[in-house]
Amino acid sequence: MRAVILSIGTELVRGLHLDTHARHVARALGTLGVEVVRHETLDDDTQTIVDAFCRAGADADVLVATGGLGPTQDDCTRHALAQAMDVPLEEHPEAVAHLQAWAEARGRPVSAANRVQTLVPRGADVLPNPVGTAVGIAARVGKARVFCIPGVPAEMRVMLEGEVLPRLRGTGPGRVTLVRTVRTFGLRESEVAETLADLMVPGRRPQVGTAVHAGIIDIHIHASGEEGEVRGLLNADAATVRERLGPAVFGEGGAGLENAVAALLDERGATIALAESCTGGLVSAKLVGVPGISAHLLEAVVAYANVSKVETLGVPPELIEAHGAVSEPVARAMAEGVRRRAGADVAVAVTGIAGPGGGTPEKPVGTVWFALADAAGTVAAREHLLGDRGLIRERAACHALDILRRRLVEC
Amino acid sequence: MRAVILSIGTELVRGLHLDTHARHVARALGTLGVEVVRHETLDDDTQTIVDAFCRAGADADVLVATGGLGPTQDDCTRHALAQAMDVPLEEHPEAVAHLQAWAEARGRPVSAANRVQTLVPRGADVLPNPVGTAVGIAARVGKARVFCIPGVPAEMRVMLEGEVLPRLRGTGPGRVTLVRTVRTFGLRESEVAETLADLMVPGRRPQVGTAVHAGIIDIHIHASGEEGEVRGLLNADAATVRERLGPAVFGEGGAGLENAVAALLDERGATIALAESCTGGLVSAKLVGVPGISAHLLEAVVAYANVSKVETLGVPPELIEAHGAVSEPVARAMAEGVRRRAGADVAVAVTGIAGPGGGTPEKPVGTVWFALADAAGTVAAREHLLGDRGLIRERAACHALDILRRRLVEC
Repeated sequence: MRAVILSIGTELVRGLHLDTHARHVARALGTLGVEVVRHETLDDDTQTIVDAFCRAGADADVLVATGGLGPTQDDCTRHALAQAMDVPLEEHPEAVAHLQAWAEARGRPVSAANRVQTLVPRGADVLPNPVGTAVGIAARVGKARVFCIPGVPAEMRVMLEGEVLPRLRGTGPGRVTLVRTVRTFGLRESEVAETLADLMVPGRRPQVGTAVHAGIIDIHIHASGEEGEVRGLLNADAATVRERLGPAVFGEGGAGLENAVAALLDERGATIALAESCTGGLVSAKLVGVPGISAHLLEAVVAYANVSKVETLGVPPELIEAHGAVSEPVARAMAEGVRRRAGADVAVAVTGIAGPGGGTPEKPVGTVWFALADAAGTVAAREHLLGDRGLIRERAACHALDILRRRLVEC
Repeated sequence: MRAVILSIGTELVRGLHLDTHARHVARALGTLGVEVVRHETLDDDTQTIVDAFCRAGADADVLVATGGLGPTQDDCTRHALAQAMDVPLEEHPEAVAHLQAWAEARGRPVSAANRVQTLVPRGADVLPNPVGTAVGIAARVGKARVFCIPGVPAEMRVMLEGEVLPRLRGTGPGRVTLVRTVRTFGLRESEVAETLADLMVPGRRPQVGTAVHAGIIDIHIHASGEEGEVRGLLNADAATVRERLGPAVFGEGGAGLENAVAALLDERGATIALAESCTGGLVSAKLVGVPGISAHLLEAVVAYANVSKVETLGVPPELIEAHGAVSEPVARAMAEGVRRRAGADVAVAVTGIAGPGGGTPEKPVGTVWFALADAAGTVAAREHLLGDRGLIRERAACHALDILRRRLVEC
């Protein structure tokens, strides 16, 4: 079962709006075992849409199109569908009844503009729309079952769930597409590629692929087939990936480094404090995103000015003078200072140069020092992070969380 | 000048990730007058990508493809391009030199996996990548000029800006699509719709539409045509919008509330300090995203535990006992406390219940108190914010910044 998704709308093609529908539809089809092979985002141009319908009719089993069913003149999905089916558009009694009921319920006449929404290609079925004027259309083009639904987000979601998915459920050969995502931090993509080379061979089942953001490498494992068999395959691959990548693995699914840290803090019953400079509160903000963190996070100090490092964190001013604010001794003193002030079990400090200004030949933009202080003492580490100001800060926050995670794992 | 955008990656097609690159590329091409007519999101499958290259070679002048240039085995953009061009892949000396320089700068050997990134279709040009191992490729398929760049977001953006756009500048026929976005905070969407009803009539030129997120309402104004004329139309509408929406307007384009605050702090030469509870450092992290904020932001204290509110911010414990941590007196004491501690001109405090737990009938989830302290005294305000934990925190951070912005405007 191969599926194609069309998102129709000039605003989408020109980049005025971000298309999030295609992802939503792709995920929903995946859970039914319908494998999406292509999305196309198309202009409100009849011939362009006709071509896309015909192409999908030749190479796909299912097509879901969103958008272009409205009452305005640029909405041409219904016309394109009729042309691709080589049939005329006709008033459909169900669509007429829907529009009249809709207008009556609101005490308004049916507008001339809305009339076009009663037209459906001959032989096609109407998909009821419980929340808007535009009914959907179910039809067949070539070998593909075609479903056209409105692009208005609330209407799209309700009609996908209520009309499209039920018509596809069980039509797959009992097959589902499932995904497991193993998340890692601290590896290079080429290392992962070498370590998992045998799993990532194209055409292998399950398919294994990677995606990288801000130092986090996600390993996606996915396959289609009978549900029990697919689960077995994914479990086996996930176990292999976890074993080979070892301590770099911090979680699965959508859980971030902050969730891994929060879970370990729960297990250990530990309290923490943070001292941030270049990250500016990002480490703290990520942790506070996890419900229940209030049992563990006592305090975070964004000691952005040197006077704050000295007065709030107790960093000796002579350390800053001798080594600079971005240095190992200052990072250590920040971690120790905030741990003492908050009375926390463990504390992490970050100080670095996020740019664009402030870099020197010895300490270029991207130089970041980290320190962790706990009952066993204080450790420090330096990283040279790449990217713009935003990415350097995001990467630095992830590093700080990972240092904390790895220390908590050891405890 | 018709352009097609390809986003390559199985995770994108299956809906594991949201594709935001196509929008970014479409907007950038629009500013050059290159009209994007189609996006396609494709599986990491060589034949699928070959077909898309050939289709664009027949019906487009420009093709920009992102993704599939990494070192892993599922990356097949370069192979597909070579097949579409009907030429072999060859080691390109510039790509080899790039990879060696990259490895040397990091004191690592060139890995076997990365070697594939030196392969380029015969006759194609290399596009330098200043921030990653994967060079881009410029070539021709049919009548289309083809640009392949990596899908890693930071690399994609830098290479689009630095390599692709300069090669296309001046080739368009003088028609452009331009967008201006006026940003507001503190209004309801229905208020905006009523105030701007005459501008938002469908079919009007320019088109005016709104988009809402976390209390920020963006007014998008866009039109296509000859550049000078379009700029004139957008300027006129932007001026009308600004005049009608008044003090709710905080900026234009991609600038956030934090940029508006930072600019006002620059103008006033003022220093600030922050005391955050439920936002957990988010206000600070947003401000620290603005380069140069170090001249103004002295300190932020995430006083998550009550002991931190008392000991670091000097909130009297009897206030917390009498009114609770989420209350007007505590918000005021937090703002005054952090202002005193940091010696700042102005201080803002946030304390609230982000949920999912912790709500009571008197103080339901979403109750947030804000206070601002400066030389003129202290003011406080309460909001009931809607949404889940993440959205409540995001909204609270925006409110805090907006309170600061409106106060700085008055000074």
